[in-house]
Amino acid sequence: MKILEIARRARIAALKMSNVNTDSKNHAILEIAKEIDSARLKLQEINGSDVNAATRDGLQSSLLKRLKLNDSKIDDIIKGLQSLADLDDPVGKTLFSIEMDQGLELFKVSCSIGVIGAIFESRPDALVQISSLCLKSGNAVILKGGSEANKTNQFLSELIREKIFESNIIPKDSVQLIDTREDVKKLLELDEYVDLLIPRGSSSLVKFIKENSKIPVLGHTEGICHEYVDKDADLNMAVEICYDAKVQYPAVCNAMETLLVHKDIAKQFLPQIAQKYEEAKVELRGGTKTREILPEIKKASEKDWQTEYLDLILSIKIVESLQEAIDHINYFGSHHTDGIITKNKNRAQKFLNEVDSAVVLHNASTRFSDGYRFGFGAEVGISTEKIHARGPMGLEGLVSYKYIILGKGQIVSSYTGKNAKQFTHKSQDKTWNSTKNS
Amino acid sequence: MKILEIARRARIAALKMSNVNTDSKNHAILEIAKEIDSARLKLQEINGSDVNAATRDGLQSSLLKRLKLNDSKIDDIIKGLQSLADLDDPVGKTLFSIEMDQGLELFKVSCSIGVIGAIFESRPDALVQISSLCLKSGNAVILKGGSEANKTNQFLSELIREKIFESNIIPKDSVQLIDTREDVKKLLELDEYVDLLIPRGSSSLVKFIKENSKIPVLGHTEGICHEYVDKDADLNMAVEICYDAKVQYPAVCNAMETLLVHKDIAKQFLPQIAQKYEEAKVELRGGTKTREILPEIKKASEKDWQTEYLDLILSIKIVESLQEAIDHINYFGSHHTDGIITKNKNRAQKFLNEVDSAVVLHNASTRFSDGYRFGFGAEVGISTEKIHARGPMGLEGLVSYKYIILGKGQIVSSYTGKNAKQFTHKSQDKTWNSTKNS
Repeated sequence: MKILEIARRARIAALKMSNVNTDSKNHAILEIAKEIDSARLKLQEINGSDVNAATRDGLQSSLLKRLKLNDSKIDDIIKGLQSLADLDDPVGKTLFSIEMDQGLELFKVSCSIGVIGAIFESRPDALVQISSLCLKSGNAVILKGGSEANKTNQFLSELIREKIFESNIIPKDSVQLIDTREDVKKLLELDEYVDLLIPRGSSSLVKFIKENSKIPVLGHTEGICHEYVDKDADLNMAVEICYDAKVQYPAVCNAMETLLVHKDIAKQFLPQIAQKYEEAKVELRGGTKTREILPEIKKASEKDWQTEYLDLILSIKIVESLQEAIDHINYFGSHHTDGIITKNKNRAQKFLNEVDSAVVLHNASTRFSDGYRFGFGAEVGISTEKIHARGPMGLEGLVSYKYIILGKGQIVSSYTGKNAKQFTHKSQDKTWNSTKNS
Repeated sequence: MKILEIARRARIAALKMSNVNTDSKNHAILEIAKEIDSARLKLQEINGSDVNAATRDGLQSSLLKRLKLNDSKIDDIIKGLQSLADLDDPVGKTLFSIEMDQGLELFKVSCSIGVIGAIFESRPDALVQISSLCLKSGNAVILKGGSEANKTNQFLSELIREKIFESNIIPKDSVQLIDTREDVKKLLELDEYVDLLIPRGSSSLVKFIKENSKIPVLGHTEGICHEYVDKDADLNMAVEICYDAKVQYPAVCNAMETLLVHKDIAKQFLPQIAQKYEEAKVELRGGTKTREILPEIKKASEKDWQTEYLDLILSIKIVESLQEAIDHINYFGSHHTDGIITKNKNRAQKFLNEVDSAVVLHNASTRFSDGYRFGFGAEVGISTEKIHARGPMGLEGLVSYKYIILGKGQIVSSYTGKNAKQFTHKSQDKTWNSTKNS
């Protein structure tokens, strides 16, 4: 099918989707979970052939790991769907309500966005996650996965479409898969049909998409996260936090990539943390001053301050002041997640206010920056944008809102001129849903 | 100054701006209001020379009107500033707060966006409005006005910068003016420095900007607004509303451009409303069926369904059903503001749910779609985007948010594995501001 036709179908599906009731959406999500469980062997067989082909093609081992759907990953997919069904419907929530005047009410109500284009790499579990998040939020989605996962993605998307079709309510074309890079390029041009692009993958992917589309993009580029150990830090706490932020799971975007240390405590602190890092086989890279204290480590270049290692590598810089730490983070960081460790509340406040990042922390590990840990239930992603959604993003990142006015024949000319009626603008504790049954 | 240098200065100013306290911002806004009042004669003299030059260049009269700053417009500018100073500070509001675990608190707090690029046409009053909205919301702004208003814009921006400078707190470079189209083109490329573009003007301006920048755009394209008169409408009410929606102020984006009428009541309704429109000198254009009832009116072509007249012109279409009305609006409309007139609640519900517009109304004039009428105090604009802000937009359209975590040394590894601690995720009624003084 041509991409324009796919986009048209998605647009039509989206209009229907936005009004599907919560029970039908949850039922479909649970049916998909059941079917994935039943089809487990078939799924693994198909995924196996993708993995074999990718192995022959020499795909690097970290990507092969992401591609392979083992039992534990399939369990996670199923659990994810079940917990998604349990979450509140993000659509139809009354965000506020006022009486504009007697008998003239205004409601701000959350609603679906419409058509989402989701472009992701290698991990086929992402396909299920993204489709089900879109389903729950009443959006139609056009999916493009990594080509190395083509067969797995085909199988999973057909399974989902089948279950949706069986619902008799949710349009099948609310989930569609496209195959080729050419299709993606064409999709990027269809701003009349696609409301939002969500790229999940490398920063070069996100950049490419932003450069080639008028459609709004909700992406996360990369996580160059920092912990700053202040001169007033509890150093034992600092050791614990800095170890956790780097070592607990280095391959994720909220892991620390650069450690900033105040000059006054560097001599005391650095040898302690360096010893712990050595035990965990973390490669350290430092500036000139750092290497005066830790002479055995590698030299860091300016490039290190801008690198997301996603690995057991850490760059370390000694700073003269709190201000230098803040400036370094705002200049070199990726506005993702950054923390300060200090006992001094005023210094913490300054850091939390002035560091321009989606998540800022006082005396805690950067690794807490995560939708599940925030209690959002589902995580759509971590946005490094400031527009629409920022930071760890739950389902509310996939909804917009509309204003609904209920009148009794009011006209604006009554509210203008000499004997103009006045608006009351009284806030009221009334939901849009409650008006439906009254 | 080079545009890159301007953008760099704006970025530095923005970081400072985001932490300026409410009183200082309000004080500066009121000082600007006073100064504009004092400088009224000088301002009108300078504006007069812009108007004279534009007259010589043959600028069309509607644009000349927009350009000219008469006393009443200057009064409105001053009043606007005074009421802006009275509004709540949109920055620093706690949007929610939870206890993630004992001693580990999460706050979602509104914050400034950063650097805003505002591109607007002819009206110099827009310069004051946009700069002051940005000031109140703690953003730095780079302004580009219409070239025919160059001298007026120069004068106003210097006046504002001077007052900001006198505050000793707000950085002068939080308001900067650029002159040429070349500068705008370069600005569109500076996505590392500019967080958001707000074009105010024609849809071709908005389109041009979207096509030429990676920076998110918050624009309103156009308002092709509809009223749909249902078969179950109170026809007297329908006449009142449809008259108001078209005639009360036709030059604005929330005025009705196309009237949809259900076939069952067309014969009764159309002659009534046509007579009222005739008195107001509204030019009517209709489809074949409409012209069977109103044979004297012009023929409407498909182009009419897609035209924002902004004038005393109205296209009329008779529809077979509620569904056809909804489909027409979703296909030809601009997703701005659309209303239904009916006594039938179920039919109203269907319309309000399925029409994919920022504002939908039941039994009220489209002209109510407006930030001031909504009680927002200030209006940043009316967004036809679904991402970030939709519909009439108050100051909250100019803020983002950040997550702040206050810990006591917590690390993620305590919350994983066999003896994992559990998150409590308890919502709490605590503001971020209250933690500052505790």
